[in-house]
Amino acid sequence: MPQTVARPESVSFALHGLPVSHGIAIGYAHLISHALLEVHHYVVSPKAVQKELGRLDDAIAAVGAELELLRQTPSAAASEVAVFVDLQMMLLQDPLLIEEARQHIRERRCNAEWALVQQMEVLVEQFDAIEDAYLRERKADVVQLVERLVKSLLGHPGYVPQKRRDGFATIVVAHDLSPSDTIHFKDAQIAGFVTDIGGATSHTAIVARSLAIPAVVGLQHVRHTVNDGDVLIVDGTRGVVIVAPDERVLEEYRIRQDQLELERTKLKRITGATARTLDAERVFIKGNIELPRDAQGVREVEADGVGLFRTEFLFMGRDELPDEDEQFEAYRSVLKALPGKPVTIRTLDIGADKALRGSDVHNEQNPALGLRAIRYCLAEPRMFLTQLRALLRASHHGQLQIMVPMLATLDEITQTFAMIERAKAELRAEKIKFDDAVPVGGMIEIPAAALSVGLFARKLQFLSIGTNDLIQYTLAIDRTDAAVSHLYDPWHPAVLMLIHRTIQTALRVGIPVSVCGEMAGDIANTRLLLGMGLRDFSMHPTQILEVKQEVLRAHAGELALKVGKLMKLDEPDKVREAIERL
Amino acid sequence: MPQTVARPESVSFALHGLPVSHGIAIGYAHLISHALLEVHHYVVSPKAVQKELGRLDDAIAAVGAELELLRQTPSAAASEVAVFVDLQMMLLQDPLLIEEARQHIRERRCNAEWALVQQMEVLVEQFDAIEDAYLRERKADVVQLVERLVKSLLGHPGYVPQKRRDGFATIVVAHDLSPSDTIHFKDAQIAGFVTDIGGATSHTAIVARSLAIPAVVGLQHVRHTVNDGDVLIVDGTRGVVIVAPDERVLEEYRIRQDQLELERTKLKRITGATARTLDAERVFIKGNIELPRDAQGVREVEADGVGLFRTEFLFMGRDELPDEDEQFEAYRSVLKALPGKPVTIRTLDIGADKALRGSDVHNEQNPALGLRAIRYCLAEPRMFLTQLRALLRASHHGQLQIMVPMLATLDEITQTFAMIERAKAELRAEKIKFDDAVPVGGMIEIPAAALSVGLFARKLQFLSIGTNDLIQYTLAIDRTDAAVSHLYDPWHPAVLMLIHRTIQTALRVGIPVSVCGEMAGDIANTRLLLGMGLRDFSMHPTQILEVKQEVLRAHAGELALKVGKLMKLDEPDKVREAIERL
Repeated sequence: MPQTVARPESVSFALHGLPVSHGIAIGYAHLISHALLEVHHYVVSPKAVQKELGRLDDAIAAVGAELELLRQTPSAAASEVAVFVDLQMMLLQDPLLIEEARQHIRERRCNAEWALVQQMEVLVEQFDAIEDAYLRERKADVVQLVERLVKSLLGHPGYVPQKRRDGFATIVVAHDLSPSDTIHFKDAQIAGFVTDIGGATSHTAIVARSLAIPAVVGLQHVRHTVNDGDVLIVDGTRGVVIVAPDERVLEEYRIRQDQLELERTKLKRITGATARTLDAERVFIKGNIELPRDAQGVREVEADGVGLFRTEFLFMGRDELPDEDEQFEAYRSVLKALPGKPVTIRTLDIGADKALRGSDVHNEQNPALGLRAIRYCLAEPRMFLTQLRALLRASHHGQLQIMVPMLATLDEITQTFAMIERAKAELRAEKIKFDDAVPVGGMIEIPAAALSVGLFARKLQFLSIGTNDLIQYTLAIDRTDAAVSHLYDPWHPAVLMLIHRTIQTALRVGIPVSVCGEMAGDIANTRLLLGMGLRDFSMHPTQILEVKQEVLRAHAGELALKVGKLMKLDEPDKVREAIERL
Repeated sequence: MPQTVARPESVSFALHGLPVSHGIAIGYAHLISHALLEVHHYVVSPKAVQKELGRLDDAIAAVGAELELLRQTPSAAASEVAVFVDLQMMLLQDPLLIEEARQHIRERRCNAEWALVQQMEVLVEQFDAIEDAYLRERKADVVQLVERLVKSLLGHPGYVPQKRRDGFATIVVAHDLSPSDTIHFKDAQIAGFVTDIGGATSHTAIVARSLAIPAVVGLQHVRHTVNDGDVLIVDGTRGVVIVAPDERVLEEYRIRQDQLELERTKLKRITGATARTLDAERVFIKGNIELPRDAQGVREVEADGVGLFRTEFLFMGRDELPDEDEQFEAYRSVLKALPGKPVTIRTLDIGADKALRGSDVHNEQNPALGLRAIRYCLAEPRMFLTQLRALLRASHHGQLQIMVPMLATLDEITQTFAMIERAKAELRAEKIKFDDAVPVGGMIEIPAAALSVGLFARKLQFLSIGTNDLIQYTLAIDRTDAAVSHLYDPWHPAVLMLIHRTIQTALRVGIPVSVCGEMAGDIANTRLLLGMGLRDFSMHPTQILEVKQEVLRAHAGELALKVGKLMKLDEPDKVREAIERL
């Protein structure tokens, strides 16, 4: 049981965390226990070892059935849930987890719960050594699967809170949530999520966004501060949780909630509209996707195509590289799902240490400054060639564009084009069809690339600005590092200068330029980017309508004048003010 | 015994490694065994545990005596050796090493050698988690001390090669060398070092440079490729080791050796000369130092002061923070050693994880992008204030300048000045003297700073470009990461643009600007930097005369014209060619 805090009923206070899913929720707190904290160690007699092994097997079978059921449960977040269920299913058979736990039971004669938790901690440590924020947070899969097993072992009751009779919604307060957990909440009128841990790419965040449920994460010890049944306001836009609000505050938030609801209804009406500014500038708004099935979300909001299709999913959590046919099918399926729309596919953007589960973990000191993305691909020409061949073959089936991440030097561009030419020559010799004119572009996400943009724009057919990494390197800030994440600032004048320069140079040279980093999907930046001359945005599909609305309300010509002036400022406060006034 | 390779006597071949100490050496290979590789594990009887503990104590006493002797041995590299001997002395009493090894012997009933090596590996792993290249390589201290202890335990003969009767010099071929090892070589006519491992900041490199002995490190398996007694040419300038050269090659290198000797003699003659270009531009050439006693080396070459005094040594490998008086004495001693010369002291430039041995290791994913330098100091105001007070007090005793590392935002500058004002107010209230006009400058080593240089130049009193980090962040390359270090390129057009822009902006605003990164000490860059307008260089004291000679031969006006043209190029090959033609 979590500790609770004794305090007078009437005292209201606010907690600040990370806003990961917009909107406002009001409801009663429902605290969820953290099974893993309840696991104790005990030594079993030599005879009871078999019994513990049997308990483990039963738990695996029970959780397997539970996951199978989840897979079949219809849900608004079906695609997100499916991929996580698949991952957990795989983990359930992973010898690194299960066999090692069995080994612990046999060798240390400990209880099954303890063996699982011990091995989980070993794996979590290995995950912590991974640089990529998305992959690192996948350690949550291990933790959540082990928690699921431990609950089964402990005979825990499920998570599911009771549906309240007073019609008031429930806010789930937990240490962390897995997407499959959230399925259980489907009929329980869950209005918001509040968790101790997690980041912008945690499961809680991803699922909350896909279900459009407001969520605040990273609140540290919220389960110890909030009592079960407390009235909570979750402001997922500002990252604030108000505990036991007074009637005045409640009323204020109810009004804001109504306004948001109204806005959401209005937003849906612009789904079919073409994105044009008031002065008739056409703006392309595309989706970023991670899995072929995500193309569905892009279709639903009638986006202008896919601006970033990450191909990492093909290479993750497996023992062998995906072959050319498997890759080709994945790429083609997205093109087929979006006929007549451009689809930009990014070549592999992970490092040597995480391309394959079986590969040697190259223990890098600073993986963000190491062998990643195009550097890694050029160091593994066989693997890169296979991906390029698959991409070229897919180019015959739609409007494909090939995008190369993490370019820093002309050499890398030259080598990449040489590889593409080689792949084309092979396909020609084999009489396999492909689009010889498939555009090849590069990501501008390293300061050296942004500063060499004139040269890069002459060599490439399009550019896409990856603002997340560009900001990280320009400011020397790892935003996933809690000690410095407050210094991560998209509006640092140096960052704006590099983005502005990149857009303006591409326009001058006459090649397309887009922004596919998180700045593109945040409406706080839409007017700024339009004013810089950007006409091509790519973002998570759920952000598309909001950004389109901003575009429809904007006057590109006026913004260009204002941003031109703003770019002459160098005092950060003045720059910030000017952006907010746009 | 190292494995050796059977090959015909006459076959000559070349090995390529990292050049860490310039010059050419010719001599016979002397292979040194690697005691640690010879340690085997055995279980001792419960009764023999006391005996193993006694053996460990004897070895500790023997090595302590050995180190004491070393400390008293006069040597050209006395200051480098002394600090390492001190470190090893401290380690010899470090419970993390010694007590834990005793624990291993008692608990696992193993031999003393094995216990030491096991614990060494634990410590090495912890060192590997440190970001700073200099500190990380200090793990070599642990390894070397353990090796020393193991040798004593194994009753190994010392390293010392016999002095050869044929007058031919000896080239030491080893896995790695400690500075104290090298003392043993003093009378043995050691002409060069060749090692398997090590980097530019390894002990072998540091000592080789201070003894002016050519060295090539990082040759991987050189001890298995070279036979004892092989004739070797060590080209410490190009990083090449030629094994069994033929007479023609030998002759060629003998001539180059003579030329180098002649140049060295000539160089000494310019010690007293003022550094001015042919067109009478005054150039300041200063030293970078790490320890107060290094000021001696700066005096010997009659440098124009200290451009970078690192203060990390005060905070390393200890359990408590240095107090104000200890810091004050250290700072003042350098000012006293260089009367009338400017001394630039940099505030603490390490991260939270390594300021103190006892502090919590904050497990950062990418420490180079984390809580370091000024970020860390501002997060620890008490510690920072103590350093600022010590610096201000020292300012009364000479021409001190305070330099702040790793600035990225105006906020950090504002906060730093507020801290300095607070320190001044305190000193005033306590009636302690200081120089109220002590200049405060900042390092330009993050792209955001270089891009904000106009703003920074208005707020600071001088700038200093830290090229090592600036290149690292601009290219997103960790140069200590072997997988990508070949991509680290000081001549990348983007890097040159940032350096040029910084120098030109400082000149326009009218504040001093220097370069204190490694580019400043490499004569391949002297003409380039002069042409960019740089008049203030700071480097390792051993590089000062060479750079001064380059300055004396240069025509600043002509170089400015050429560099102005060169800066308009953006094709890397053309830029490189133009620099080489300068």
